[in-house]
Amino acid sequence: MTRDSRMLDPDKEPNLARDFQNIWHPCTQMKDHETVPPLWVERGDGVYLIDRDGRRYLDAISSWWVNLFGHNHPRLNAALNRQLENIAHVMFAGVTHAPAIDLAERLVTHTPPNLTKVFFSDNGSTAVEVAVKMSLQYWRQVGQPRRTRFVYLNGAYHGETLGALSLCGLDLFRFHFEDVLMKNLKVEGPDCFRCPYGLKPETCNAECFEPMETALAEHAETLAGVIVEPLVQGAAGMKMYPPVYLKKLETACRERGLHTIYDEVAVGFGRTGSLFVCEGLGLKPTFLCLSKGITSGYLPLAATLTGDEIYDAFYDDFSALKLFIHSHSYSANPLACACGNESMRMLTEEGFLDSLKSKMTFIRQNGEKFQALEWCGEFRQTGMIAAVELVRDRATQAPFPFEQRVGYRIYLEGLKRGVFMRPLGNVIYFLPPLIITREEIQTMMDTAYDCIRAVCST
Amino acid sequence: MTRDSRMLDPDKEPNLARDFQNIWHPCTQMKDHETVPPLWVERGDGVYLIDRDGRRYLDAISSWWVNLFGHNHPRLNAALNRQLENIAHVMFAGVTHAPAIDLAERLVTHTPPNLTKVFFSDNGSTAVEVAVKMSLQYWRQVGQPRRTRFVYLNGAYHGETLGALSLCGLDLFRFHFEDVLMKNLKVEGPDCFRCPYGLKPETCNAECFEPMETALAEHAETLAGVIVEPLVQGAAGMKMYPPVYLKKLETACRERGLHTIYDEVAVGFGRTGSLFVCEGLGLKPTFLCLSKGITSGYLPLAATLTGDEIYDAFYDDFSALKLFIHSHSYSANPLACACGNESMRMLTEEGFLDSLKSKMTFIRQNGEKFQALEWCGEFRQTGMIAAVELVRDRATQAPFPFEQRVGYRIYLEGLKRGVFMRPLGNVIYFLPPLIITREEIQTMMDTAYDCIRAVCST
Repeated sequence: MTRDSRMLDPDKEPNLARDFQNIWHPCTQMKDHETVPPLWVERGDGVYLIDRDGRRYLDAISSWWVNLFGHNHPRLNAALNRQLENIAHVMFAGVTHAPAIDLAERLVTHTPPNLTKVFFSDNGSTAVEVAVKMSLQYWRQVGQPRRTRFVYLNGAYHGETLGALSLCGLDLFRFHFEDVLMKNLKVEGPDCFRCPYGLKPETCNAECFEPMETALAEHAETLAGVIVEPLVQGAAGMKMYPPVYLKKLETACRERGLHTIYDEVAVGFGRTGSLFVCEGLGLKPTFLCLSKGITSGYLPLAATLTGDEIYDAFYDDFSALKLFIHSHSYSANPLACACGNESMRMLTEEGFLDSLKSKMTFIRQNGEKFQALEWCGEFRQTGMIAAVELVRDRATQAPFPFEQRVGYRIYLEGLKRGVFMRPLGNVIYFLPPLIITREEIQTMMDTAYDCIRAVCST
Repeated sequence: MTRDSRMLDPDKEPNLARDFQNIWHPCTQMKDHETVPPLWVERGDGVYLIDRDGRRYLDAISSWWVNLFGHNHPRLNAALNRQLENIAHVMFAGVTHAPAIDLAERLVTHTPPNLTKVFFSDNGSTAVEVAVKMSLQYWRQVGQPRRTRFVYLNGAYHGETLGALSLCGLDLFRFHFEDVLMKNLKVEGPDCFRCPYGLKPETCNAECFEPMETALAEHAETLAGVIVEPLVQGAAGMKMYPPVYLKKLETACRERGLHTIYDEVAVGFGRTGSLFVCEGLGLKPTFLCLSKGITSGYLPLAATLTGDEIYDAFYDDFSALKLFIHSHSYSANPLACACGNESMRMLTEEGFLDSLKSKMTFIRQNGEKFQALEWCGEFRQTGMIAAVELVRDRATQAPFPFEQRVGYRIYLEGLKRGVFMRPLGNVIYFLPPLIITREEIQTMMDTAYDCIRAVCST
């Protein structure tokens, strides 16, 4: 089947017309679907999505970075079924249940030792909103109510509810809503591809930390904390930076008593090769936000972890009204927690994380081919995440013009060739399920290479 | 088992100690769990929650107002299993799937005719954030960027992410975060129990609409829209008001071209006796926010519905950058949509909504007993939702002091007697699964009556 036959024709495609008629898809210009209807996925099998006609698409981005163990995994399916036989859901105030208790314990066990408490919610945005609200309330309850602002990095993405969006360093996501956002503080962060200091991430000392240092000093009294996506800024185009930046941040925040919020929604659960970035680097964020991979891509669930210092500031007699008043109806949904437990079991089984090392090497080796392309500004990689930043002119690093939609056209080429990508602007990236095989990596990257050539050479 | 035996003792209760050690529960003063640990729910069966010792608790509040058809319903379990055999989840940008297409079509079919498009997200907060962001972006895209504020009612609750919280008319939820919230506009709304006009909801003409009328006139040029919980303000203590208020609101907003946002997260899906309040009353909100009952209490899912006028303002060539940039990884999760479809099938089956009528009558009849209690300020009911507002002094309607925690103590009495309630302050309410039987209604309300007497008479 070629892409052309998938064009929207209500007579030929009555069911797709029902989609077009009733659904507003997320992050989508719906007019694009006039000519290219959405891919109708019916089944999943390992790293493959399977459409109605039985055509297979390698899910190169883990369905928006959520899937770890592939689609239709027998152990995850079985875990979900076992829980379903007991109860699908029960509220989580005044009530507890084994799936949540087990998952919370696993998360506390496998994250840095300062993180002792788990607060469950539904998605990455709410995980961040919870951290922000806990931080703000903490400062009020310890007598520092002026601390109401957070520092975030240029290029940052932390979700799209208005609180989370107020920490976003990408204008595209926020410009329509600027008037109603919290007045947080954006600072220039690392930009290794176009490093203004002319340094290399392998050898630099995070000289680019200087704007952060200055911001923390200048606004010390009104700041609550700093939020970062550790090592990889996902929505910015898989921008990657070295651990030394995070180490400097930890020191600077500790000296000033500021909170650090690690948004590991995208990079947690093995993506970078460690279970979590903070744990792998021996860092101790005040808050750790998790979602996406937490259920291995099965069900919505999120967690915000924090430590005793924060928790204790809320722990008092009820009448003191210091409790954290925040809830979502489906907090700690037992079915989602059951998936989370099975996924954590698999992630922490002897040898699993080790098994990623050779895959990471193989991805790096395959990346060399891209570097030879005249449109390859940079091939970069952190663990199981890799990206090719395409440029119009390699010498000047000048980007392709936005209007050319180079990434989108490569996405369409990928569909024709059986690989599901979703480039971020001109950045083609790979963020596959962790269980991807060597052969599948080869297919994924070779196909992407062909797609880039097909689009950029015309 | 008496409540006393459930006290937290790490030696006797090693598993509950693991909860206490690792989990921060939502909307909970964790110190309360020193003496009363959370109820450990292991299974569900119809309207009953079953703890580890096999003790049964009638779920009188549908696990935070989500459950419609009881726990462990064979048809819902089967629907979830069927979908699980295909695929648990796939991203929803560039992709579609049958469960979402079917559910969107069902929602559009059964809501007012002006609502034609469904945008999926994860919970009530995000459903509201989506409506707010769509409204703001709409006004910018039609050249009215000054419209950046929303009107909300005193007592309103629309979720707890910071955008949703900025529409909250309950100080308890927002006072710690006031400094960072959007500057929306609160107006006095209906307060039928303590009506300042001395009228009765059965016969009034919503004289209390006057403050809204004034606010809309005074701030006409900077308002984007008005948000309400139609008929029942849930978190305010199941405060109820008559349809005439909504009719006036619709007229006033239509005249001024303002958006109306109906938050039917709590009251949708049959709770009031109609499938949706707006549809039952023939009203046409600009946005309709749904969650909770959408999956009959199985899985997190939410939907924001709107119409062509809004949708068309975003529909353009990609390069115009008018698309709605908002996403959550698990938008339109296929497992959740599968539950949603089966639940909608059951809700719309011939005779189902009719079958609620005799239950509603039976609840009203049982309510008479409460009215005889000296602490009963009011017994009120809208459809399958009923509430008893307790007062210290019936003549003056003076409330019990907050510190006495009358509601909390009644909750503890309920646990002893096998009914799970969760009063809102001094308001004891019933919001059971719709499939509750006459006999179970009797048990639920008789037990609540006994609990009220036990607590208030001491």
